Amino acid sequence: MKLFKKTKKETNKHQDALNELMKVMSRERVLTAVEDRICYSYDGTKQKALPDIVVRPENTTDVSNTLKIANKYEVPICARGAGSGLTGGAVPLMGGIVFDLKNMNRIIEICPDDFVATVEPGVVTKQLQDEVAKFDLFYPPDPSSAAFSTIGGNVAECAGGITGLKYGVTRDYILALEIVLPDGSVINTGRKAGYDLTRLFTGSEGTLGIFTKITVKLIPKPEKIQTLAAYFSNKDDAIDAADLIIDNNILPRTLEFLDQMTINAVRGYTGADIDEEVKALLLVDIDGTEESIGHEMPIIENACRESKAFRTKVADTAKERDAIWASRRSISPALYNIAPHKINEDICVPRSKIKEILRRVDQIKEGQPIYIANFGHIGDGNIHVNIMYSDDPGQEALAEIIVNKVMKEVVALGGSISGEHGIGNKKSQFMELEVPPQEYEIMKRFKSYFDPKGIMNPGKMFI
Amino acid sequence: MKLFKKTKKETNKHQDALNELMKVMSRERVLTAVEDRICYSYDGTKQKALPDIVVRPENTTDVSNTLKIANKYEVPICARGAGSGLTGGAVPLMGGIVFDLKNMNRIIEICPDDFVATVEPGVVTKQLQDEVAKFDLFYPPDPSSAAFSTIGGNVAECAGGITGLKYGVTRDYILALEIVLPDGSVINTGRKAGYDLTRLFTGSEGTLGIFTKITVKLIPKPEKIQTLAAYFSNKDDAIDAADLIIDNNILPRTLEFLDQMTINAVRGYTGADIDEEVKALLLVDIDGTEESIGHEMPIIENACRESKAFRTKVADTAKERDAIWASRRSISPALYNIAPHKINEDICVPRSKIKEILRRVDQIKEGQPIYIANFGHIGDGNIHVNIMYSDDPGQEALAEIIVNKVMKEVVALGGSISGEHGIGNKKSQFMELEVPPQEYEIMKRFKSYFDPKGIMNPGKMFI
Repeated sequence: MKLFKKTKKETNKHQDALNELMKVMSRERVLTAVEDRICYSYDGTKQKALPDIVVRPENTTDVSNTLKIANKYEVPICARGAGSGLTGGAVPLMGGIVFDLKNMNRIIEICPDDFVATVEPGVVTKQLQDEVAKFDLFYPPDPSSAAFSTIGGNVAECAGGITGLKYGVTRDYILALEIVLPDGSVINTGRKAGYDLTRLFTGSEGTLGIFTKITVKLIPKPEKIQTLAAYFSNKDDAIDAADLIIDNNILPRTLEFLDQMTINAVRGYTGADIDEEVKALLLVDIDGTEESIGHEMPIIENACRESKAFRTKVADTAKERDAIWASRRSISPALYNIAPHKINEDICVPRSKIKEILRRVDQIKEGQPIYIANFGHIGDGNIHVNIMYSDDPGQEALAEIIVNKVMKEVVALGGSISGEHGIGNKKSQFMELEVPPQEYEIMKRFKSYFDPKGIMNPGKMFI
Repeated sequence: MKLFKKTKKETNKHQDALNELMKVMSRERVLTAVEDRICYSYDGTKQKALPDIVVRPENTTDVSNTLKIANKYEVPICARGAGSGLTGGAVPLMGGIVFDLKNMNRIIEICPDDFVATVEPGVVTKQLQDEVAKFDLFYPPDPSSAAFSTIGGNVAECAGGITGLKYGVTRDYILALEIVLPDGSVINTGRKAGYDLTRLFTGSEGTLGIFTKITVKLIPKPEKIQTLAAYFSNKDDAIDAADLIIDNNILPRTLEFLDQMTINAVRGYTGADIDEEVKALLLVDIDGTEESIGHEMPIIENACRESKAFRTKVADTAKERDAIWASRRSISPALYNIAPHKINEDICVPRSKIKEILRRVDQIKEGQPIYIANFGHIGDGNIHVNIMYSDDPGQEALAEIIVNKVMKEVVALGGSISGEHGIGNKKSQFMELEVPPQEYEIMKRFKSYFDPKGIMNPGKMFI
């Protein structure tokens, strides 16, 4: 457990802040017992740092009051949704206050006539998806964490997901935000006139303000989904197939790629029925009407066969779909069959550069006593490069060296260090690889304009 | 012709800037003759203001050199694409330099594998659409001005268009920008890591920097388009039909509405074959595959009939499509049959508020000796309210009063003062109606951060 070392002055300020918080918030919304605080010390990266205070706001006023106090006493604030982030966004690196936004979980309004919904940040993404589905509407962003991650966290990290190729990612669906700024003032973005402030805050990772209301765009729910699995004896063939599908002017709802190491892990984990000869796998969902699917699926099957898939399988029932997707869903836990530790780098390159980046990753790995499993949203060029390492001496350091080399190649190919997981503290060291100096400086100026005292999620995004 | 009155000091600065420009730019790229300058004094609003100098850059270096000089001598800079804007964006209200970006019209790269294209700002939007179509790709934003407006102008104003309901507007397709800032430095936005700067500049109306390269997202070109016209005896029926089409989970590529006054104007102008009994018209394009169109068009026809359309007509040939769309295309010139002057306010309200805003517009007009024609992109809630007035005494003032009242109602209904034409100087007086004080202040702070000397398109967006 990391404990941020505070000076005497800082400790006093924290105590003053706590005293004031106790005056404006009801008791049960402010937690200070260590056993409570431990529950708010980690996230999906398995980093740990103990907050001094946990605040559980119920509404915008609570958020505003807390921020006013935090700002006054210069106490760090770290917002937390489900704590499932993969770059450290919710870890209170410098102690201070963690905002547990889980209680702000109302769906304020679904307006089917206008295809919009307004929700509080603590709403779980899957719940939003399910609620709008009752109106035959669809909220497309679908991170793998959708069943437990919150929409607030999704917006903060600009979460991606498996539907990105056809539908885009979180940023493409955020129409308006109610934001509490560090000084406690409440702004509303999303008016059309003037500069676009909504997009500036989307993906800002809790470094500029706290979202208290989120208005999302919805689209009509596709009538039907059909799934295909295609099996290849070579990863380049699978990549060719993905290209050929898209060349045929079809944008699948999902286009997932699994490499051999990933398949091996899954096979060992689930006992999934995947032959030994399968060295790469494409999982494809298409959605639309009965008619459009009937038109597209044969083209997709054909593209796979033309690219030397030795088998394709179309799922016709929900059960068959589920069986095909089980292997994809099991990847995360299955990878730990390879080794006990994982660095998951969600790199992103232009689609045309996927073969090349995987070739370079192979080259970097060549001869090193470490495993790398690659899978991900191939249509977006968003590949999860998973570097698996053991507790043996030197393994962690080797993994870090490999990550460094991979990141350099990604940026050299015009790609991004983060396809969909954000920067947090885990990737902040690579920011300047990707973002040129002047642009980086502009971002830091925005940060200091909104948060002059630097209380908002310190240690994240910028180094 | 408006001539901005300069002080002696300003005149000297302009002369110094000109002298320096002459040193770094070749002669033919700097125009000072009055007959040349007049050509750069107006835009689609018919306002006029004479620039002192016209610079016609050929590349980013030219733009950067000019901005450095303008910034040094504090000379206003106004960027100009085709000059077809409808809110005054390209009018050099305070004189100074007009940047004619028409010569920066190269399509730098179309990358069909990655569905992106990079172009210079002076490329005409239609040309971009046509060039990418050769690769079976589609750049969806389609403002009515596409045949002559430039992509740089489209990005600056965040142009909308008739495909917005299904495909979104310009902002949804801008992936990256090369921007020259007022100090002459060149930044590149569009990296995924960090804050989203691309969107902040998109729609910034030349007030923050000059775009010199624009990277756009493309999507597969739909196989086929089919068109339907539906005729109604009542405008509310047409609005109901539009709602019902969308309720059926169909997002038409285009969903245009024309009210009675608009139809009267078109009828008088083109001799179009539209019966007297037609009081409202819906024009619908759907696109997709043969199969999806075959599925959707009967549903659309049915929705129109259920909403009391007394006739529907599906165009099967290109010629028939063209005949149907001719009436829509003729609106702008046709309206001048009603009266010699027009204020075209492209208001935008939530779709569910269209009937209500049109009712309120009727109420505002009630008994006033003026004509109002309403038409537009009904699926987006983006209605063009055209206030037509004559040269008679008091008419212009009355038109302005009506505009004011309409804007207030639009904002009261949660709408925007500008759906797709930007703010410019024509709507800057209404900015504070829509944008709350603190958000307005934030925008002004961004403006002064990037442009501390206020040389970038002064007089636009902010009052």
